[in-house]
Amino acid sequence: MSTVVASPVLEIAQRAKAASRQLSTLPTAAKNEALEAIASALETNADSILAANAADVRDAEPLVRTGGMSQSLFQRLLLSTEKLRVMVEGVRAVSQLPDPSGRTLERTLLADGLTLEKVSVPLGVLAVIFEARPDAITQISALAIKSGNAVILKGGHEVENTMRAILDTMQTALARHSRVPADSVTGVYGRESVQALLDMNHLIDLVIPRGSNALVQHIQRNTLIPVLGHADGVCHIFIDRAADPEMVNRIVVDSKTQYPAVCNAVETVLIHAEVAAAILPSLVRALEEKSVKIRGCERTRSFLPGVAIDLVQDTEWHTEYSDLVLAIRIVNSLDDALAHIDQYGSHHTDAIITQDTSTAARFLAEVDSASVLHNCSTRFSDGFRYGFGAEVGISTSKLHARGPVGLDGLVTYKYRLAGSGQIVRDYTGANALPFHHQRLKLD
Amino acid sequence: MSTVVASPVLEIAQRAKAASRQLSTLPTAAKNEALEAIASALETNADSILAANAADVRDAEPLVRTGGMSQSLFQRLLLSTEKLRVMVEGVRAVSQLPDPSGRTLERTLLADGLTLEKVSVPLGVLAVIFEARPDAITQISALAIKSGNAVILKGGHEVENTMRAILDTMQTALARHSRVPADSVTGVYGRESVQALLDMNHLIDLVIPRGSNALVQHIQRNTLIPVLGHADGVCHIFIDRAADPEMVNRIVVDSKTQYPAVCNAVETVLIHAEVAAAILPSLVRALEEKSVKIRGCERTRSFLPGVAIDLVQDTEWHTEYSDLVLAIRIVNSLDDALAHIDQYGSHHTDAIITQDTSTAARFLAEVDSASVLHNCSTRFSDGFRYGFGAEVGISTSKLHARGPVGLDGLVTYKYRLAGSGQIVRDYTGANALPFHHQRLKLD
Repeated sequence: MSTVVASPVLEIAQRAKAASRQLSTLPTAAKNEALEAIASALETNADSILAANAADVRDAEPLVRTGGMSQSLFQRLLLSTEKLRVMVEGVRAVSQLPDPSGRTLERTLLADGLTLEKVSVPLGVLAVIFEARPDAITQISALAIKSGNAVILKGGHEVENTMRAILDTMQTALARHSRVPADSVTGVYGRESVQALLDMNHLIDLVIPRGSNALVQHIQRNTLIPVLGHADGVCHIFIDRAADPEMVNRIVVDSKTQYPAVCNAVETVLIHAEVAAAILPSLVRALEEKSVKIRGCERTRSFLPGVAIDLVQDTEWHTEYSDLVLAIRIVNSLDDALAHIDQYGSHHTDAIITQDTSTAARFLAEVDSASVLHNCSTRFSDGFRYGFGAEVGISTSKLHARGPVGLDGLVTYKYRLAGSGQIVRDYTGANALPFHHQRLKLD
Repeated sequence: MSTVVASPVLEIAQRAKAASRQLSTLPTAAKNEALEAIASALETNADSILAANAADVRDAEPLVRTGGMSQSLFQRLLLSTEKLRVMVEGVRAVSQLPDPSGRTLERTLLADGLTLEKVSVPLGVLAVIFEARPDAITQISALAIKSGNAVILKGGHEVENTMRAILDTMQTALARHSRVPADSVTGVYGRESVQALLDMNHLIDLVIPRGSNALVQHIQRNTLIPVLGHADGVCHIFIDRAADPEMVNRIVVDSKTQYPAVCNAVETVLIHAEVAAAILPSLVRALEEKSVKIRGCERTRSFLPGVAIDLVQDTEWHTEYSDLVLAIRIVNSLDDALAHIDQYGSHHTDAIITQDTSTAARFLAEVDSASVLHNCSTRFSDGFRYGFGAEVGISTSKLHARGPVGLDGLVTYKYRLAGSGQIVRDYTGANALPFHHQRLKLD
């Protein structure tokens, strides 16, 4: 790319904005046709996409050998015929989901001949900044199109060849076989394009980072554009004194080991002191059988004489291990558990195990997290398990969308007021005409 | 205040956070009792509040004489028995509004014995930064309490005595006659406390600025906390070629003159070239009768030979006059009008006057503003006129609350998942238990 060009990212963003305007007025059928066109084209172009991915993989292999790329990142980068088939299936699945935009949410008769409607509309332009996952490209593009948004993708350099091949395929499919403008799905490349995107708060409506905590935090601190996502996922389980012992090991082991690298895995277990002696030995045994390394507070260690348990440092309670490591702390009361979660948690997902319904009610009410769970695994906190059909991400922000976010998180609303010449002067003062504010039925 | 204290603002914010936690679990009746206690106490303490206001007024008078304070700011600062009565009435009116928090928004059976609820909850702690209006103190405090949020107020120094008297009254009323903690409504003083508040993104959940564009922009650029509000209100009316001439003068005059200082007053009128000759002379006469100064584009002037019209500078289309000044531009088409609004508007409120329903439909769909209006005055874009009962502010952000924002803008939601020992492992793999994702009825 020529260095003479002032800002190719700006031009791409402007084209995306223009595309988003067209896209926002298209009917659901046109958007579903576009998704089908993309799915078919991905099938047709499978060989060239896999070849492009092979080039990325060739570049990555020496890095993996020298430790410059983690094995897990490499596995996520790697595409196969089967993985591509699942991606295509994912695009078709999005076309089956209800269209979140264009819905009349409320209708109110304000005054004679003056009707207010609140209607859902797309946000506009999304910027998605991710790392090495090829499946993120098709998934987020499908979600964007379905919700009526244009999307600008910025993938890690490891996935650049794969991304170019997939984007080419999608754009050609849109241009040839759909009413959705090809510029609805575009990509930018190179490290410096990230800050360029983050600076375009007049063109981009939402940034969705998908990657490490460091990436998310960097983005949150360097843009005026709203960011949908979460940095940390420091999730807790509080084992109350009225916990059913049968549940404890099952729920804690599942929450830690079912997929330790994800944000809704548990990082810290808080145990009520009254049941610590009864619960700890068996729980620690169950965790160690699953190769979980325990890090305990002083009191945890005192309940486990003869068991080698590393001492948790006080600064460590903030840590998202994302690995087979679990911190355990003994607390004296529900209040102490609430205080710990408030101080060290990330307002993502926290669970209580108890048979005492009033203790559960207090925990669910007072823990200020996007998802609060009672007697089940933290791993349920997820858009697919919640029944959203698709997950855009999990938000720990309280504004707009919170918790697991589906297609609904990609729309906003506008107010449409239809009159027949009404002016405000007639509705003020001594002989003011009346407001009705009558809620009307939706169709 | 002693300068030895490290950060009184931090301490106040921590106490507000603690209060918000208690407040968030109180039933609606307890919050309404607190509002009644505040209303009664404001009545009882009317004399001391008016005396405090008289002190602020005494300090302000020399400023008004020397031009250091505008007459309109001075008028807003000035309290009277009647104004105080209206403020008390406003507090009681909020107690009549429905409680936006604690509502079950959705209930879904995820799997056997595993039920997900989406419930509305207060945001937590609000920081409200305003200028000289005493009525803002009681209004925003009432809205905060009703929605279950603690609020930290920062008023301009002009209103400091009044604010201390009102806050004392409210806090004493809460402490003596309600279950709402007195720290739910607190205040900070001094210019440096603004940035201290803006830095507390771990304690404060939403900042609501009420004041000049400059204040709002400064706040938006200097905090990681979400900001609810709008900087500019550059509102447009497009007079289409199919406009009913009967409506034009009425709607434009009302939109400009009914209250020119507010954000939903019109700033620019766009006129379709085909009807400019027919419409302009009469429109300009009607506006000039109301003392509106016209600023026109070259073509506007050419349609009005012999009328002295100032030429609009190109940079001026972004201007919010907030005064009896109106810019007029001739455009060749709906598309040109849409492009102008997109380039120069502030996504706040824009209106079209036309009898052509398909032109209206395109305008309402394609103008990306919080409120889009057809054949009525821009001044209708307002929380009270929209029937929200109270207005927290008008938001031009697309995330969370958009447009006029009522009590609903002060709550978020959380997901509550109640199980009986479920773990994710049982719902994956070959013999996976089924998810039902069955939407349940709300009570």
